[in-house]
Amino acid sequence: MNLIDIESLNIKEIEDIISLASQFRSDIGGFNQEPIYGDKKAGILFFEPSTRTKSSFEIALLNLGAQYIDIRPDSSSITKGESLENTIETLALMGIELFVIRHPDNVIYDLTSKFPNLSFINAGAGITSHPTQALSDLLTVKEFKKDLSKLNISIIGDLDHSRVARSFIELTKKIGCASLRFSGLPELCSNFLEADYGSFHEDLDSAIENADLIMGLRIQKERIQEALSIEHSEYLKRYQLTESRLALAAKDYIIFHPGPVNYGIEFEKEIADLENCKVSHQVANGVGLRMAVLAKLFSEQ
Amino acid sequence: MNLIDIESLNIKEIEDIISLASQFRSDIGGFNQEPIYGDKKAGILFFEPSTRTKSSFEIALLNLGAQYIDIRPDSSSITKGESLENTIETLALMGIELFVIRHPDNVIYDLTSKFPNLSFINAGAGITSHPTQALSDLLTVKEFKKDLSKLNISIIGDLDHSRVARSFIELTKKIGCASLRFSGLPELCSNFLEADYGSFHEDLDSAIENADLIMGLRIQKERIQEALSIEHSEYLKRYQLTESRLALAAKDYIIFHPGPVNYGIEFEKEIADLENCKVSHQVANGVGLRMAVLAKLFSEQ
Amino acid sequence: MNLIDIESLNIKEIEDIISLASQFRSDIGGFNQEPIYGDKKAGILFFEPSTRTKSSFEIALLNLGAQYIDIRPDSSSITKGESLENTIETLALMGIELFVIRHPDNVIYDLTSKFPNLSFINAGAGITSHPTQALSDLLTVKEFKKDLSKLNISIIGDLDHSRVARSFIELTKKIGCASLRFSGLPELCSNFLEADYGSFHEDLDSAIENADLIMGLRIQKERIQEALSIEHSEYLKRYQLTESRLALAAKDYIIFHPGPVNYGIEFEKEIADLENCKVSHQVANGVGLRMAVLAKLFSEQ
Repeated sequence: MNLIDIESLNIKEIEDIISLASQFRSDIGGFNQEPIYGDKKAGILFFEPSTRTKSSFEIALLNLGAQYIDIRPDSSSITKGESLENTIETLALMGIELFVIRHPDNVIYDLTSKFPNLSFINAGAGITSHPTQALSDLLTVKEFKKDLSKLNISIIGDLDHSRVARSFIELTKKIGCASLRFSGLPELCSNFLEADYGSFHEDLDSAIENADLIMGLRIQKERIQEALSIEHSEYLKRYQLTESRLALAAKDYIIFHPGPVNYGIEFEKEIADLENCKVSHQVANGVGLRMAVLAKLFSEQ
Repeated sequence: MNLIDIESLNIKEIEDIISLASQFRSDIGGFNQEPIYGDKKAGILFFEPSTRTKSSFEIALLNLGAQYIDIRPDSSSITKGESLENTIETLALMGIELFVIRHPDNVIYDLTSKFPNLSFINAGAGITSHPTQALSDLLTVKEFKKDLSKLNISIIGDLDHSRVARSFIELTKKIGCASLRFSGLPELCSNFLEADYGSFHEDLDSAIENADLIMGLRIQKERIQEALSIEHSEYLKRYQLTESRLALAAKDYIIFHPGPVNYGIEFEKEIADLENCKVSHQVANGVGLRMAVLAKLFSEQ
Repeated sequence: MNLIDIESLNIKEIEDIISLASQFRSDIGGFNQEPIYGDKKAGILFFEPSTRTKSSFEIALLNLGAQYIDIRPDSSSITKGESLENTIETLALMGIELFVIRHPDNVIYDLTSKFPNLSFINAGAGITSHPTQALSDLLTVKEFKKDLSKLNISIIGDLDHSRVARSFIELTKKIGCASLRFSGLPELCSNFLEADYGSFHEDLDSAIENADLIMGLRIQKERIQEALSIEHSEYLKRYQLTESRLALAAKDYIIFHPGPVNYGIEFEKEIADLENCKVSHQVANGVGLRMAVLAKLFSEQ
């Protein structure tokens, strides 16, 4: 079995993963370690820099007692021109049955069709998908006793470059939501201006009004400074999430961000201290969720 | 004890390693894990990129329950000008007793003479030797119920730059073989044109005729494109191993390649699907063989 | 609890660490492994190259049965501009409670004040401090049945750039010593020419006379060749530690160096073979000392 994208999961599978992930989260804030997979070996292949996703998979594997090897593309035969397929095939012959892969391109579909007996987890594919992040966010939604299907959801910022947004949107399609709004500088949301699964709001206030869940996205500083049609200060004025703007949101709204947050850019600094801001919970749930996905895939091998 | 080159091993030692390696291979294709070396620590030092050899040692160590640290030269004190000898000495003082080393130069002999109480495994030394690959290939020969000493062996391609070829040739000297032929563009085989331990055949067909074991070697694309005296297409015409050429080989011939194979260059693409092509078995046997070498060296410490 | 600098420790704490470290050293030269911290996870973050300190922490963690992840800044989100604080916060949320950090700047104080519930070990901070090296050296002093407070100590070489010297000096302030002398080319000792805690001696012989403990320091070859006011040969003549000079030292003197030693520069080659030279013992004690510090911090979490 694989975890490649949200589209391929059915509701039952999603619920199972979330339920298992909840069991791995300890009541006191940590994780219920269950080192029962000592005979299982995973291969980690990250073709893009990462702290939180990569560490979160590594810690999840350690919590499960599993072993892993970290194949760093820069010191592997990939530098000699070996194809990713060949690398996977070779490692599988050596006894690795599960692969956690982050890649700037959408290579993971080819891998799953080529190697039906192996398990793959998509840990981030280009700007297309990041399913474990979306599932982990669903776990955080449930932690705050909320039902995704009843939420007014607003996703704001650089949507065009966000695999997190795309996978989360797929989740809302699958599970449903009360409403789905997008907001951001139009040139950063070009693929979302006329979407049929949600409405685009050039004006941020109009997107925040009555929102239950506001998901901010990371915007690269370089992108604002060099590439945008408006000045940095003007960008902040129009699209920074501020405490005063949040007065428009629904009662008990929650704020998400896949991190790392640029406080002072997409979020005003004060946001970090709001009770409503659940970025820390998202991180902790990320480990529990990844433990669940790994445990499920290991069990089914 | 060390595993430095084929020359230093006697027949009994080779047979012991092969026999132990067979025990580590599971009947169902995987490995019999034997995590009994929990108190043993190895140091891995690779000064050249590698996927298969390095991963294969890492997985072999994990299968044996041993611990290891991966000393990456690019982030170690070697960047401050520390000598390899000094690094080894320091790590030995910290409790590392076994070192797995790949290096572009032939440094390993100096290390074994300087540190007689430590164990060293040569994981690839320049263009000179790669003994665990040769032993692993012997294991694959045995897997197919063949007796190396009775085989007609042909090694083809870029022999001058191949440590794999050199170590395998040493093995045939030790154990014997029915015949040993070399083939390839003469400028890539300059050290083998007048060898007394085998015959050189400029014509590939003449080398393949009646061969029981054909070992292809990797040729770097850059080398063909930039450095050779003949055109790329001419090179392929003369030296690519093709299915039609293989009609000349002996019944039940087998094909080896140390990988990664450039299909479309040294081997025609179709070769990958031939039952006779044992590249996958070579990879899997590599783990079992390395488990055997590590177990033997750990036990003797 | 943290281990940040020598200044923050009291005599009792230092004695406890040294005593625990002695127990981890085996009588036969190795280490008493005590794999009782299987549920503990450390994060290793090294922003400067290192073999001995980093490996020594890794091996200490393995000896204690603890798990760790190695966050390499060059492939982490730090390359995306994520702050170190944010990285630490994220990893803590994932279940890492102890961090071993080497950094060119003095960042560790900010981290300890910002994260009072986490444990930090300073594994080298710029040119300011390297407390585990100083404590490990104290362990080596005790191994040779010496009482630091009664020793005539000479520290020689490039003091200005040495965090090892600074932390060791702090230790002599805390515990006391019979005398403390510094020697080296004045431009490399500019901060020690008029220190009130020790005397500067431009003449090396005068610094060595009657010394019980002589600590040499690494000098970067580039620094001598490019930056110094005197010729390379003149530097060696004045400041290289030689066997003949050591005739001036006290009976049973010992020589320390944090390594890697440039034999032929700060030390004459022959020094390596002197019984008095304790560089190897320093390395081995480094593992025992770090086991003690880690065990203490894990226990108090």
